[in-house]
Amino acid sequence: VHNPFVPETLEGWSVLHLMYRVDWGRIGDAFPGDRQQMAEEVATALARSVATADDGAHALVQLLGHKGDLMVIAFRRSFDDLGRVQLALSRAHLQRYLTPTASYVSIVELGMYEMTAKIHRQLAEQGLSVESDAYDAAFDAEMARQRERVANRLFPAIPATRHVCFYPMNKRRGETLNWYAESFERRADMMLEHGKIGRTYAGRVVQVISGSIGFDDWEWGVDLFADDPLVFKKLIYEMRFDEASARFAEFGPFYVGLQFPPAALAAFLEGQLPPAME
Amino acid sequence: VHNPFVPETLEGWSVLHLMYRVDWGRIGDAFPGDRQQMAEEVATALARSVATADDGAHALVQLLGHKGDLMVIAFRRSFDDLGRVQLALSRAHLQRYLTPTASYVSIVELGMYEMTAKIHRQLAEQGLSVESDAYDAAFDAEMARQRERVANRLFPAIPATRHVCFYPMNKRRGETLNWYAESFERRADMMLEHGKIGRTYAGRVVQVISGSIGFDDWEWGVDLFADDPLVFKKLIYEMRFDEASARFAEFGPFYVGLQFPPAALAAFLEGQLPPAME
Amino acid sequence: VHNPFVPETLEGWSVLHLMYRVDWGRIGDAFPGDRQQMAEEVATALARSVATADDGAHALVQLLGHKGDLMVIAFRRSFDDLGRVQLALSRAHLQRYLTPTASYVSIVELGMYEMTAKIHRQLAEQGLSVESDAYDAAFDAEMARQRERVANRLFPAIPATRHVCFYPMNKRRGETLNWYAESFERRADMMLEHGKIGRTYAGRVVQVISGSIGFDDWEWGVDLFADDPLVFKKLIYEMRFDEASARFAEFGPFYVGLQFPPAALAAFLEGQLPPAME
Amino acid sequence: VHNPFVPETLEGWSVLHLMYRVDWGRIGDAFPGDRQQMAEEVATALARSVATADDGAHALVQLLGHKGDLMVIAFRRSFDDLGRVQLALSRAHLQRYLTPTASYVSIVELGMYEMTAKIHRQLAEQGLSVESDAYDAAFDAEMARQRERVANRLFPAIPATRHVCFYPMNKRRGETLNWYAESFERRADMMLEHGKIGRTYAGRVVQVISGSIGFDDWEWGVDLFADDPLVFKKLIYEMRFDEASARFAEFGPFYVGLQFPPAALAAFLEGQLPPAME
Amino acid sequence: VHNPFVPETLEGWSVLHLMYRVDWGRIGDAFPGDRQQMAEEVATALARSVATADDGAHALVQLLGHKGDLMVIAFRRSFDDLGRVQLALSRAHLQRYLTPTASYVSIVELGMYEMTAKIHRQLAEQGLSVESDAYDAAFDAEMARQRERVANRLFPAIPATRHVCFYPMNKRRGETLNWYAESFERRADMMLEHGKIGRTYAGRVVQVISGSIGFDDWEWGVDLFADDPLVFKKLIYEMRFDEASARFAEFGPFYVGLQFPPAALAAFLEGQLPPAME
Repeated sequence: VHNPFVPETLEGWSVLHLMYRVDWGRIGDAFPGDRQQMAEEVATALARSVATADDGAHALVQLLGHKGDLMVIAFRRSFDDLGRVQLALSRAHLQRYLTPTASYVSIVELGMYEMTAKIHRQLAEQGLSVESDAYDAAFDAEMARQRERVANRLFPAIPATRHVCFYPMNKRRGETLNWYAESFERRADMMLEHGKIGRTYAGRVVQVISGSIGFDDWEWGVDLFADDPLVFKKLIYEMRFDEASARFAEFGPFYVGLQFPPAALAAFLEGQLPPAME
Repeated sequence: VHNPFVPETLEGWSVLHLMYRVDWGRIGDAFPGDRQQMAEEVATALARSVATADDGAHALVQLLGHKGDLMVIAFRRSFDDLGRVQLALSRAHLQRYLTPTASYVSIVELGMYEMTAKIHRQLAEQGLSVESDAYDAAFDAEMARQRERVANRLFPAIPATRHVCFYPMNKRRGETLNWYAESFERRADMMLEHGKIGRTYAGRVVQVISGSIGFDDWEWGVDLFADDPLVFKKLIYEMRFDEASARFAEFGPFYVGLQFPPAALAAFLEGQLPPAME
Repeated sequence: VHNPFVPETLEGWSVLHLMYRVDWGRIGDAFPGDRQQMAEEVATALARSVATADDGAHALVQLLGHKGDLMVIAFRRSFDDLGRVQLALSRAHLQRYLTPTASYVSIVELGMYEMTAKIHRQLAEQGLSVESDAYDAAFDAEMARQRERVANRLFPAIPATRHVCFYPMNKRRGETLNWYAESFERRADMMLEHGKIGRTYAGRVVQVISGSIGFDDWEWGVDLFADDPLVFKKLIYEMRFDEASARFAEFGPFYVGLQFPPAALAAFLEGQLPPAME
Repeated sequence: VHNPFVPETLEGWSVLHLMYRVDWGRIGDAFPGDRQQMAEEVATALARSVATADDGAHALVQLLGHKGDLMVIAFRRSFDDLGRVQLALSRAHLQRYLTPTASYVSIVELGMYEMTAKIHRQLAEQGLSVESDAYDAAFDAEMARQRERVANRLFPAIPATRHVCFYPMNKRRGETLNWYAESFERRADMMLEHGKIGRTYAGRVVQVISGSIGFDDWEWGVDLFADDPLVFKKLIYEMRFDEASARFAEFGPFYVGLQFPPAALAAFLEGQLPPAME
Repeated sequence: VHNPFVPETLEGWSVLHLMYRVDWGRIGDAFPGDRQQMAEEVATALARSVATADDGAHALVQLLGHKGDLMVIAFRRSFDDLGRVQLALSRAHLQRYLTPTASYVSIVELGMYEMTAKIHRQLAEQGLSVESDAYDAAFDAEMARQRERVANRLFPAIPATRHVCFYPMNKRRGETLNWYAESFERRADMMLEHGKIGRTYAGRVVQVISGSIGFDDWEWGVDLFADDPLVFKKLIYEMRFDEASARFAEFGPFYVGLQFPPAALAAFLEGQLPPAME
């Protein structure tokens, strides 16, 4: 039975963000050759865990500020595969010089407010009763078609931009303003308006939304990728004035940094700014 | 005297969740044979503490993210038995490589909104006065019958699913929205609606609710067990729109991970993804 | 001058709760004889600091969960005496293996809502003006009589139950619900109703309330003592529905555990469940 | 230009509170002579930094509970002088055995609600326009007179009481109750009522208020000094019912402890209760 | 397309604040010559990273209180340059004696409420439609002119004052008071009033606002520079009564301290109060 209050969602990659602080003093005492080897071990372990782009993707990010020095983003096919990535990093020699400071567990998600409403409408027009098996079957068939249509958005590559921004967020459930107590139509309208602003930034920023209800402490994780970090500020500031954000969004901590190729991890450990992606 | 505002509850296992971070660097420096021995010591200690399934149950979970690497769930007959489990883990050699990051103390609980109302109604129809000893005796007798009827839900086994999700929660006591100031009937209606959604997920997820008022910092703990972790997200998201959750639920931190047999603890410490339960 | 908005309170023991985490790995490396000696040193220091029951009382509690392994409760005649207890524990050898995780400073307190109202009423009937010295003298004389009447509740022994529950709490000062802005009569009525529920648990639980305004971060500390820990849950859950709690109570962290005789501290350090009080 | 919404304030000592936890295990391993020397070094450094009472004052407090073991309070002429005190403590040998757990930066402040209103009224009666230079000059001259009148309250000695209580606080800026949106008159009335309660405790407690807007995370710091710690509880509890506190006060963490002469620091480190001030 | 609800902003320096606690015990054990060398390494690294004032600026601040001992403020051309500064500090030998306690990532920002309104008005008067390309081009051209006009405020030097105050802040998005749901005009009016108060402090304090939406956990960072620290308190207290602050401002932690020349870092590490800027 499809609950008409709940927008359908489509899911893709399982996602793990891991933030670490580097023990710079102790790693500085290690031999340069050891730093090199430790960096290679991590890069190799990550590379080996994805035979093809179909298995997943990952990124390394030099974070700015004290919340962490290094962020690893991993997109994988399953939680088992995320578990493998985390264990590989945990048992790598570099781990002796890292302290985990934060993390996020989620699954890439496309919220389908418009699509959900449209399918319900179409099936109703076909005279199907919402509690019938035929309705369910037709609904599921349509969702399967959609899932294929948007497969590349459910299983995206990680954009090779220099700047990356990650933050988790909730929809507010306050005593007067409560997203989950708004009607489906109101929520759909607000999401539509919200999406329109996002589209005016097309080409300058790529956004990957992942759902984390049941997996982590906020409801969604947002990854933004851009060449110019100012775009993060402009986009989020402009959205802060749309109703969905102004009244209903709650934001967690923000992580911002510089993406670099895994092969440059050794340079980073030497204190050299690692280059951008090619 | 039975307070007619308060739903009766039935209680089962005493429950302890213990989350630990592994000191991967230091444990990597230990001899493989020592890791093997330390893992066996823990598995043996847990196994010995429950002679039969009647004494309790426990599970090991590889957590995803930085909130912990390992979660131990123990169901036991009493707080004394939980104390024994915790001390056994604390004094095990593996503890040298573990840091406690979180925990939860609770008792398996069935909330009996419908049943409470029904008994009060029946006894009233029998002409018993709510403050009489006869009323109390009849009430207690009925509760005892219920306790036997649902014994397997009060003292459940731990489902052998791959994925486990744990989180604590409260019913809101806000300045305008206050669960505890709602009438018994309103609360019963909301719990009924809430339960209906849960039942549409039967077969895909098993839920164990435990009460923690007086024991820990939230009012209830929720354990979900499923083969497909997506079910956690779908279930909790759908419930978020029912009134009991949308208006009255407050959620604590979420812990999600991969259940594995205690015999695979050594593999986990070696950095190998431990297998699912058989 | 006695402020008619403020209920009088009577005070007894100065109270200190100290929660510690044990460094199980390092203490496991110590020689058994050393653990024995360290345990004895603590037990002796506590015993010596109270020549007679008139000087105070103390208890050791094995905590469940990660918030601490050991809780020490000390009732003493003064803050100086509490300072002595804390320093004795701090300089004991065992301290090398302990990390303080929490604490609470308070003074046993009896809130006298009914009594305050009654005295004000009686003195008014005697024609005494509330701002006169005679009024003050009569008031103070009556309070002194009360203080003697309830001396055993101001300076109680620590009940020798197996289970102990401690938590701090506040009365809410929200923007709409504000305990301190309610009239004296409303507050007195709510406390009366609250107390009635407590009395139905007489014989199953002993409650010691201590005031901590000016001493610690919450307004009151609550210690509950019971043989059956389920009583903590039942009592606090039922109270949660009375108006004083439902609308005005805010709760801090809960600590629950198993009381044991100081002589069993060595067994606890060996990882054996220490026995209950005799 | 003097903003008529803003009460004038007069300022005195720059104030620094520093709270430390002692590493009792490690300091217990030090030689007694070393502990003696380390204590003397701290006492000497503090004494040397104030040639006369005109340069400042300081106090040592043994804290109760786990939030710290030792609190240093320093009153000085400037932030430079506070910086000197902090550096002297930081570079003292004892620092090897201390962990900073909290601190507070503020400046002794007298809020002048009544005085501000009175001056504005007098100048208006003299026919001076509020935006004229003459008004400003007259206002400043009057403030200078006041500053001299209350110099001993701006630059007080530290009372030699046994018990000290420190806590920071805010005036609430809630969505409905907002101190800063109340009229000057309403605020002045509430402060007057608040002050009256304080005056009934004269002789039993000394209060030093310091302002910390722009310096630390709360708006004010409050130090209370009394021989009987019960007075802290009685005073703050009674004030909690006046409107300024009941509706508008927000309280931070409370620190309570036993003041002792710097010369007794060595005894404290030996685990002996240090004596009260002479 | 220019969103008429959103005030335009102009951006300058990328900004990084890094707060560190010094391990005074361990650094006190180092040889004086080593402390000297470590201080020089940091000062040199900072100096080298900016060939001319056009590349950026930085400041060292001795913090008061326990939130940190040392704050580094860096203004740079890009996030890459901030990454370079952070890595240089991380790999410096001094880092062995530092623990990061806080940080802030932002970009110098001028909010242009008045200017935005004025441009929209002018373009409307010229008969340009808000969605036309001509409108956009004219708008952008005007913003470019503005950017040049205020270049020295976008890329300021760091004032050589003794006292520095840093704090982050948000505009409130409460359930009833919501900055982002207010009309453009109301917001512009409140910012105008807010700015007027600031201007009465001209000459006594310099303020640098930086935007951090998308970069850090608050929306803006505020740096204040003054010779007399009392000005921080007076300014922020007075502003607290204007509507933009009283109703809509939320403040994060405050950091206050003493600016000193990088060449004096060695003196600071020796425990000598470093001198003010020349």
